[in-house]
Amino acid sequence: MLLPQFSDIEKAHNLIRSHIHQTPVLSSISIDSMVGGNLFFKCENFQKVGAFKFRGATNAVLSLTEEQALQGVATHSSGNHAAALALAAKNRGVRAYVVMPENAPEIKKKAVAGYGAVITFCTPTLEARETTLQQIVEKNGATIVHPYNNFQVISGQGTAAKELLEEIKSVDLVLCPVGGGGLLSGTALSVKAISPKTVVIGCEPAGADDAFRSFYGDHIYPSLQPKTIADGLLTSLGEMNYPIIKKNVDAIVTVSETAIVEAMRIIWERMKIIIEPSSAVPLAAILEKKVDVAQKRVGIIVSGGNVDLQNLPF
Amino acid sequence: MLLPQFSDIEKAHNLIRSHIHQTPVLSSISIDSMVGGNLFFKCENFQKVGAFKFRGATNAVLSLTEEQALQGVATHSSGNHAAALALAAKNRGVRAYVVMPENAPEIKKKAVAGYGAVITFCTPTLEARETTLQQIVEKNGATIVHPYNNFQVISGQGTAAKELLEEIKSVDLVLCPVGGGGLLSGTALSVKAISPKTVVIGCEPAGADDAFRSFYGDHIYPSLQPKTIADGLLTSLGEMNYPIIKKNVDAIVTVSETAIVEAMRIIWERMKIIIEPSSAVPLAAILEKKVDVAQKRVGIIVSGGNVDLQNLPF
Repeated sequence: MLLPQFSDIEKAHNLIRSHIHQTPVLSSISIDSMVGGNLFFKCENFQKVGAFKFRGATNAVLSLTEEQALQGVATHSSGNHAAALALAAKNRGVRAYVVMPENAPEIKKKAVAGYGAVITFCTPTLEARETTLQQIVEKNGATIVHPYNNFQVISGQGTAAKELLEEIKSVDLVLCPVGGGGLLSGTALSVKAISPKTVVIGCEPAGADDAFRSFYGDHIYPSLQPKTIADGLLTSLGEMNYPIIKKNVDAIVTVSETAIVEAMRIIWERMKIIIEPSSAVPLAAILEKKVDVAQKRVGIIVSGGNVDLQNLPF
Repeated sequence: MLLPQFSDIEKAHNLIRSHIHQTPVLSSISIDSMVGGNLFFKCENFQKVGAFKFRGATNAVLSLTEEQALQGVATHSSGNHAAALALAAKNRGVRAYVVMPENAPEIKKKAVAGYGAVITFCTPTLEARETTLQQIVEKNGATIVHPYNNFQVISGQGTAAKELLEEIKSVDLVLCPVGGGGLLSGTALSVKAISPKTVVIGCEPAGADDAFRSFYGDHIYPSLQPKTIADGLLTSLGEMNYPIIKKNVDAIVTVSETAIVEAMRIIWERMKIIIEPSSAVPLAAILEKKVDVAQKRVGIIVSGGNVDLQNLPF
């Protein structure tokens, strides 16, 4: 299996740079004094479609040949990846086919439809989603863009950490949430290439600890009945993400749901930015002392800011 | 009555510059396409203590003579001004006396106490607040720093618009919420000095339209039984603010509560930043077509981001 290298992230960055936001890196004096270290938040909640996913999706769409582009891209997703792929496709004038479970939240259906994607609804099972996607692809010849188990997607996601380390020097630690591993694998590749001594730690909800078990085990443990408020982190590691994470990540830690909500509230209240629960997982790990940040300079990848304001945990 | 001029704002800026955050100016492509103009949000929600109030309070504290500083500063407030004055005083090593109504929200009591202010609680009437403050000042000789009817405070608040116009060129319109008028009077002084052709519009909830009535009348109408979610905008115009606003502001418009909540939601959802209801009033005015922004470059002063997450309007 051909795995992406840092040179692929550099290529991706050159390709997508003019299409993405170079998101800001923010700090908070009050959070720093609370935890005793210097935290640098790379704010992908300010990325287009409100999540880092736009980086990988854009790289995948821009990497298509002209011939592939004519036939479009396809995915099944009810989350940020669907919106990201839809917008990335729209930006290149490429058709996007998105399979969504019929019970997906109205707001997500609207977002994806708003970017002009062709939506096919199916019953809300993984089997139905995959079957429906397969039918579409066989009919239209569209290229499937997996949300994380994809070479171009991983390369695109790695550009966030690359920007972070280009802007902030002498970072001791980089913390990153882990779900399917697209963000974490790309982040680890960038960090270890740019600053080999910087420690990379994946942060995961204890209620969806498949990456933790896989990392310390010798194969991918699937995510069975995950239960967490961090709805971006429910999925199992991808086959392409796993070996990259095994090789380049230093540790994976797990955190409680209480700590996630507390970390989310602290970031909202102190930094005045809206982040989704998944993005609060690294600070939760600091609050629960799973990671020691005393006197350290710590980069944190804030994955996104798409939350349902009608359904907040506080 | 000696009124501040733009030169006082320039002096204030030099004095406070190293103590305040130069807050970012943010834009949103999706909000721009929704309203048909280019909006530039000057984000004082990212200011220290989460509000522009820190500018004026800092200028007031740093403008004290050594002798005055020894005797401290005092105010009665349950809002952002109390926290701002407390932190500004702490930063200079000056004692701050804050009179708060005993029923003030716990979170605000904690914030002010956390900055080391000496808090005196009183019964929640304006009379009790003023009497208590008077007693403190007579006893301690502290300098009263009024939240908006104060020369140094107005001069400090004007620095936000000054920074905005130094960063963003060719602004056609500047929109600013109006409560007591500290922010609006300082903003108007800066805008008319830096860019005389730029139109300045004060934006006010219809449920607290005293500034609207005062502006189009010939004296200050007090704010009687104001009713609005924009809790920063309940107060009457100050005597020092009124003539500055009369002379330098081009119009005052009023907006509905529904539009304020809708504007607040749009900013939270699209920009991923936390703003308080008062800060949503200018966008509410655009949404309700009280201000025409078509093809225009529009500066908006976002006053603050202190909201009770337990008590959101959506």
